[in-house]
Amino acid sequence: MSIKTITITGAAGQIGYQLAFRIASGQLLGTGEKMNLKLLEIPIALDALNGVAMELDDCAFPSLETITATDNASVAFQDCDYAFLVGAKPRGPGMERSDLLIENAGIFSIQGNAINKCANRNIKVLVVGNPANTNALITMSNAPDIDPKSFSAMMRLDHNRALAQLAEKTDSHVTSIKKLTVWGNHSTTQYPDIHHATINDKQAIDLVSLDWMKNTFIPNVQNRGAKIIQARGLSSAASAASAAIDHVRNWAFGSSDNDWISMAIPSDGSYGISEGIIFSFPVRCEKGDYEIISRLEMNKYSEDCLKISEAELLEERKAVEHLL
Amino acid sequence: MSIKTITITGAAGQIGYQLAFRIASGQLLGTGEKMNLKLLEIPIALDALNGVAMELDDCAFPSLETITATDNASVAFQDCDYAFLVGAKPRGPGMERSDLLIENAGIFSIQGNAINKCANRNIKVLVVGNPANTNALITMSNAPDIDPKSFSAMMRLDHNRALAQLAEKTDSHVTSIKKLTVWGNHSTTQYPDIHHATINDKQAIDLVSLDWMKNTFIPNVQNRGAKIIQARGLSSAASAASAAIDHVRNWAFGSSDNDWISMAIPSDGSYGISEGIIFSFPVRCEKGDYEIISRLEMNKYSEDCLKISEAELLEERKAVEHLL
Repeated sequence: MSIKTITITGAAGQIGYQLAFRIASGQLLGTGEKMNLKLLEIPIALDALNGVAMELDDCAFPSLETITATDNASVAFQDCDYAFLVGAKPRGPGMERSDLLIENAGIFSIQGNAINKCANRNIKVLVVGNPANTNALITMSNAPDIDPKSFSAMMRLDHNRALAQLAEKTDSHVTSIKKLTVWGNHSTTQYPDIHHATINDKQAIDLVSLDWMKNTFIPNVQNRGAKIIQARGLSSAASAASAAIDHVRNWAFGSSDNDWISMAIPSDGSYGISEGIIFSFPVRCEKGDYEIISRLEMNKYSEDCLKISEAELLEERKAVEHLL
Repeated sequence: MSIKTITITGAAGQIGYQLAFRIASGQLLGTGEKMNLKLLEIPIALDALNGVAMELDDCAFPSLETITATDNASVAFQDCDYAFLVGAKPRGPGMERSDLLIENAGIFSIQGNAINKCANRNIKVLVVGNPANTNALITMSNAPDIDPKSFSAMMRLDHNRALAQLAEKTDSHVTSIKKLTVWGNHSTTQYPDIHHATINDKQAIDLVSLDWMKNTFIPNVQNRGAKIIQARGLSSAASAASAAIDHVRNWAFGSSDNDWISMAIPSDGSYGISEGIIFSFPVRCEKGDYEIISRLEMNKYSEDCLKISEAELLEERKAVEHLL
């Protein structure tokens, strides 16, 4: 049995603090699978990161072999099998969106380089830190020796949020909903799409009104993050960490039969989306690989929604193209 | 298959925020076992608690049936099978230890009453909030219709910390250490005891020096909480939540063969400890019940350590005896 290496960046942050313990307790690989955990932080957070490492020790997790706490990306990504890129620069007061993109591009190009140099060639990379899709694009572009299919950005939180909203509305359990998709960018242009979704084998679209779908469901999913901040005074952390585990676990070990998940991945041109941008599609996972669910029927409304999110991602790419 | 009800108090706090998601993801009961989660907070924290409940929704956990967020103890403990009493009043500036005991006694007597009135008769209660042992005593005393063996306080974090320290010193993995005990009170009078512990079937006491045991190991375990605060700027949360799950999971589903765990439980007079106080003993768990490991040989040093922690707990009891 080989020991897997899992890297978490921004590991002393709110999401990282949730993610590290859920992974170390065995929820990513399954209990009994040994792991080395590598935690990356910026120098100013190293004391806090050391505290996280001490607490991981204090859990006496059976599957945890070693913990590395570092501010050096090459150390953090050495032999990495699964990378959770959580740390990112948040938008500060007075900061333009283009500044945000460029600031983060700096971080993710360094990490892409380190992955290219040091990681396992079969690494799976999930970018959680925002703007996640374009950060994933930067990371991928800076790791030319790694298969582009190794890079993804997280839409699973949006996917799970959409499941929860639809379940509540239809008085059903999330487990009875299949084939829901959240397309596009992890931003407010994302498109939570219930046109192919079923709830206990009935068409979801027949169980709700179009008005609810367009004017309540979609904006609620798109703006859920802001609602959480309003209630907690802090942004989503535990639910983001949970979605990150769902994403990588499905990717590595397979998604459910007769269902699919939403993953932001390099577009191959499916559904007319420009190649190369990191766009969320419905995918099925098996044996460590994914394939896009193809030939879903798309109506005019859905097509328009996809185009809006695509346009945003093309613009984001333009802002950082000198770094690609 | 019956749906279990799990109650967490102080659920919007740091430990609660870790615990709720690990439990909801299936780490207490095992995946596939359905649960209702009841979250209790003080009125001022209800907005934040609502945010926690929203994030739990957003995780789309398959095993989570319902979430109740409330500031009413009777609602929170209705039909409760497993209670995690995490919320407690922390020691403020200028507060005497006796004030702290009495303030908390107020909280835990209300919760004991609610448990007595509303909970499942086979409830298992774990007190995490400090001073945990005496808080558990108060809770138990206020729930006279429930078997006293249903009440416990958490020493598992201390137990896990002791495992981690001993593993590091002997360059072994925590899983190779058996039969370690942390006796007494969850305070700096606790006694981490390696006299019966084995590491890969060798006697632990033969692998380290007495000087290290007395002057490094024991104080390090006793004062680990302060070290974490120093590094993180916040007290242990993720490791406390993890230990709480370990404790209740072992209690409900059994501990490992040929090993034992440390649980603070009502003393039955074993090892000469005064009956009734909540004292940590080595216990073995099976089929939802525990029994104290009896007749371990205790040397003078160990006996003295137990007496110190017992004396502290007797004094704590005295400070709150009008509430028992």
